[in-house]
Amino acid sequence: MKNFIVFEGIDGSGKGTQLKMLEEYLKRTNQPAVFTREPGGGKISEEIRGVIKDKENASMTDICELLLFEAARNQHLHDTILNNPNKLVICDRFTDSSLAYQGYGRGIDIDVVSKLNSIATEGISPVCTVFLDVPASIGENRNSRLIDKLDRIEMAGNTFMEKVYIGYKNIIKDNPSRFLVVDGTQNPDKVFDQILSGLKQIGIIK
Amino acid sequence: MKNFIVFEGIDGSGKGTQLKMLEEYLKRTNQPAVFTREPGGGKISEEIRGVIKDKENASMTDICELLLFEAARNQHLHDTILNNPNKLVICDRFTDSSLAYQGYGRGIDIDVVSKLNSIATEGISPVCTVFLDVPASIGENRNSRLIDKLDRIEMAGNTFMEKVYIGYKNIIKDNPSRFLVVDGTQNPDKVFDQILSGLKQIGIIK
Repeated sequence: MKNFIVFEGIDGSGKGTQLKMLEEYLKRTNQPAVFTREPGGGKISEEIRGVIKDKENASMTDICELLLFEAARNQHLHDTILNNPNKLVICDRFTDSSLAYQGYGRGIDIDVVSKLNSIATEGISPVCTVFLDVPASIGENRNSRLIDKLDRIEMAGNTFMEKVYIGYKNIIKDNPSRFLVVDGTQNPDKVFDQILSGLKQIGIIK
Repeated sequence: MKNFIVFEGIDGSGKGTQLKMLEEYLKRTNQPAVFTREPGGGKISEEIRGVIKDKENASMTDICELLLFEAARNQHLHDTILNNPNKLVICDRFTDSSLAYQGYGRGIDIDVVSKLNSIATEGISPVCTVFLDVPASIGENRNSRLIDKLDRIEMAGNTFMEKVYIGYKNIIKDNPSRFLVVDGTQNPDKVFDQILSGLKQIGIIK
């Protein structure tokens, strides 16, 4: 879908900062855009997000977690992504997060995750996925919020995040043309410059 | 799974009455059993049930609804069904409900529903599924609760329930050996006698 961009990366990769900078840039240059996130984006998806993130739900099975993400994904697709045909839709996380976190991270069969991704997205995919490349060790150190502010998934630990990072690298290897990979360990302004020039080059933004 | 029985039927088929009679019978005859229901059965599954049944969530997509049922199913499988190896586990609704309601009723591709059923159940299936055979027209009339007590799915109307009923009939045709079909339009005692003798005959209860 040509007006649909996704940002991906491990926890602490700096997506939040970069999305904010992009939002300010698009506002300043009068380019209409909707910023949204997964899981969430509307009443139903946010309710599902609440169930997923609830720290009291520690006994949630991996398959249950994945299916909840996919349920929220389909709802969010219809409520937000497909609902703004005349704007850029920029989404914080999408199908690659399920592959990286639930597939490579939790160890659910990659084919199962892919199948669920395709059911939930009904074949819709972003024209470009920006990957903020920050290895697990650096992402974890950045994630310096107090431990009681981390949610259930962020608490899963460092080895988990390493698997997720390797997962992303594999996904990029399998889909090179869809990705704009930016070294996220650089200073934020430099990262943003590279994102901007990458997105301009493929003609998505001006 | 040899200690696992499911009850299926359209809304108003009398499952509630029959499950209560079976529960009393098993208690009276000292046969340990756990009665449970889908979607629900534990904290996480009940939270998901809440999202599914919420009348304010009228804009829920069919795929989102199906994925939520499947998420609750996997959680319930681990929390309850697999967690009682020394008891009979008797469940109100299981995978056939997804096929009948979301597949045949809502019109989601049957292969998609089957695939999701198999992911969510991890291959676990009941030794016997009791189907209370009550056509849509009779079920709807029985369902005489005040309209504001009906949940989002029960409010979907008569044509919907006819499709669900036809769906069940197709599923039974495809899996004759798993089903115990009982004419649910008879009086409740007669229905219960037939369920009891059917379950005794296949050696699941005494």
